[in-house]
Amino acid sequence: MSAAAVEPVKAGDVAELAFAAKRAGRKLASLSASDKDQILSRIAASLERHVAEVLRANEEDAAEARVAVDRGEMSKALYQRLLLSPEKLQGMIDGVRAVAKLDDPAGKMLQRTLLDDGLILEKVSVPLGLLAIIFEARPDAITQISALAIKSGNAVILKGGREVERTMAAVLVAIHEALRGSGLVDEAAVSGVYGRAPVEALLKLSGTIDLVIPRGSNALVQHIQNNTDIPVLGHADGVCHVYIDAAADLDMAIAIAVDSKVQYPAVCNAAETILVHRAIAEAALPALADALEAKQVKIRGDGRTRGFLSGHAVDLVGDDEWHTEYSDLVVAVRVVDDLDEALDHIERYGSHHTDSIVTEDADAARRFLDEVDSANVLHNCSTRFSDGFRYGFGSEVGISTSKLHARGPVGLEGLVTYKYRLLGHGQVVKDYAGKPARPFKHLKL
Amino acid sequence: MSAAAVEPVKAGDVAELAFAAKRAGRKLASLSASDKDQILSRIAASLERHVAEVLRANEEDAAEARVAVDRGEMSKALYQRLLLSPEKLQGMIDGVRAVAKLDDPAGKMLQRTLLDDGLILEKVSVPLGLLAIIFEARPDAITQISALAIKSGNAVILKGGREVERTMAAVLVAIHEALRGSGLVDEAAVSGVYGRAPVEALLKLSGTIDLVIPRGSNALVQHIQNNTDIPVLGHADGVCHVYIDAAADLDMAIAIAVDSKVQYPAVCNAAETILVHRAIAEAALPALADALEAKQVKIRGDGRTRGFLSGHAVDLVGDDEWHTEYSDLVVAVRVVDDLDEALDHIERYGSHHTDSIVTEDADAARRFLDEVDSANVLHNCSTRFSDGFRYGFGSEVGISTSKLHARGPVGLEGLVTYKYRLLGHGQVVKDYAGKPARPFKHLKL
Repeated sequence: MSAAAVEPVKAGDVAELAFAAKRAGRKLASLSASDKDQILSRIAASLERHVAEVLRANEEDAAEARVAVDRGEMSKALYQRLLLSPEKLQGMIDGVRAVAKLDDPAGKMLQRTLLDDGLILEKVSVPLGLLAIIFEARPDAITQISALAIKSGNAVILKGGREVERTMAAVLVAIHEALRGSGLVDEAAVSGVYGRAPVEALLKLSGTIDLVIPRGSNALVQHIQNNTDIPVLGHADGVCHVYIDAAADLDMAIAIAVDSKVQYPAVCNAAETILVHRAIAEAALPALADALEAKQVKIRGDGRTRGFLSGHAVDLVGDDEWHTEYSDLVVAVRVVDDLDEALDHIERYGSHHTDSIVTEDADAARRFLDEVDSANVLHNCSTRFSDGFRYGFGSEVGISTSKLHARGPVGLEGLVTYKYRLLGHGQVVKDYAGKPARPFKHLKL
Repeated sequence: MSAAAVEPVKAGDVAELAFAAKRAGRKLASLSASDKDQILSRIAASLERHVAEVLRANEEDAAEARVAVDRGEMSKALYQRLLLSPEKLQGMIDGVRAVAKLDDPAGKMLQRTLLDDGLILEKVSVPLGLLAIIFEARPDAITQISALAIKSGNAVILKGGREVERTMAAVLVAIHEALRGSGLVDEAAVSGVYGRAPVEALLKLSGTIDLVIPRGSNALVQHIQNNTDIPVLGHADGVCHVYIDAAADLDMAIAIAVDSKVQYPAVCNAAETILVHRAIAEAALPALADALEAKQVKIRGDGRTRGFLSGHAVDLVGDDEWHTEYSDLVVAVRVVDDLDEALDHIERYGSHHTDSIVTEDADAARRFLDEVDSANVLHNCSTRFSDGFRYGFGSEVGISTSKLHARGPVGLEGLVTYKYRLLGHGQVVKDYAGKPARPFKHLKL
């Protein structure tokens, strides 16, 4: 028998399960910050008691995954990601305790207004309600997202890739034991679904699920964005730019371009394209190419770039290629006539994620920061800085390239909304609309 | 010849027009608050110079509309709404000047963090970019939305119902003259489209248009919500509830229920359903029914309500009917066993817009305010209060029942998002990720 039984959930049962989760979330939403923190420390303790079962379940997932790798049905990178060591599991448990230490994003009084004597308007942050997390082989997402959901007062439905289903089931056994032990909330507040059918069923529940958070490949995110009316927190692409202006400090520009490309090429805030002002191109490009090539970066370029780099092997970038997220040690380089051409390029081909200008010219920097329509606009630093941890958010729920609700690196505040509470003593609108109409006071409190 | 030429815009030209508007918006976004206010006062002055042309264009729209009314192709209410008097037009012009006096929602520093020496993170509010407003016969929407867009630094595309196309064209002539006169922004920043085809074309431009604001019937809003990937600011339904708790003050409850229903029954924050705790039903219902009937309200009820109101003509509410927005002098009444049943009813049938509890029981009030998942939750006051002007927002962009971005009555803050600006001096991530790694400071400034 497996460490934890994994029963596929039928698509038809998903709506009912979501409804139960939403209902449990209503209770969770009304808990105090200390009650929620108590639940989190119970979860951490319960996970520590279940370490053996979780590791055993993960070994079973791993055994099946190894067969898939041998058959060429699974990448080695995916296999590596699903493996849990005792140290990695302890790190996940420590992460739950770290979330307990963060500020509660819900229940914050955002604004208070006296509309009239005895009629007070309060704008207060509240949990979104029910989250759905759809992730590929990443066991750490299970505990991290569950902890962030509970901390912010949201119920959550977890749907992991089938390659981590046994691991997820074992983790949920521990989480559910903690929820039951707390006596504070129904265990449906953290629900898991298994099997293939539930994803499409989840994506249809736009009245019940308030936010979908995908964690995985661009293809996964794009598939989810294109197949649901539920708001999705995430980004499909990270096509980030470094623009080296005419007035750039050359050494700085090269260091920033190299760091933006090579420090971790597989992630979304790595640079894909370097734009170089033509006035500095002759001086900058050969040194830039040397520095990139020293880090094994393959350079692709437009016609002018190739002209300046005749001694280097530079393939021509096709017109459609400027949209490409290489996520690898490959970079596209283009020479532009001026700042305006750089701005136009970024508007046309960028993904509104992160773009950086390198310049000593304050006016050029100001225009770039104002006019580039991206979540993160940077001056004289590497694109790799745009990240919730580096920004000091304590946790990162995701990175959003949407402009609404949450943009850029998103911390716990991305899991709350607000509501208006109006507290009266029998007031009716007729008295404020008649002749004579009673005036409002509208005093900020 | 008509007062202003109205040329239908071909669907194929809409994308180009939107691109030009977006580009003009980039300029608008970088203007100072005083530049934007100067543009608004120029628009007001230009409209005053064009009063005769606007009124003449409106007369032509009205003449055509009268024919449609006579043929039974247009409702009298719609006809009344499209009519402009000199006083109403002056009110629109005064409204533009009033918007200039509001706070600029863009350019606000929301947060500043020192990540490390010489590496400062700024979170700053910025315009969304390009708005599209789709409205039915409401000439006042043209100037109000244009003014709100400019104030917040957004470009805007206006698409009015065909019954006000001449009026809109005449107003835009005046607005464009003011924009040209300012020398600050291209007139494409406020663009109008005409004819039937452009709506569907606009709704496809999810990469270019950042927010759609519908102003019109529920059917219009729903059509737009169902036919675009662009975020929509609005609400299709307003199914609002008044719950009269066991511990309600009876006179207060009746006054609030009556005001919530009759003060302006056609609007979204009017109550459609009154829920009555069974412990107070026998005392409350006959008096409530008398008060409602004195205002010509037709009562519909569940079985128990009808039992308590045997002397009144009360039709039975069908199970599916609790979702209904009557928008008229009709109200549904239901007796519930307790607060939980009221909460369940509101969760199931409500539209998450505005719901009010009448009670002297602080615990019941707290649970209602916490657990009802609506944009506006009220205690002991009328649902009709949930409105941007009554809330003191100065302007109302719309009312949102979405939980993301903007919820409830939305003022100018609904037309901005934020971006992160990171200002460095050559910093690269390698130094913060190596061994030893340089630590971040993360000091709030």
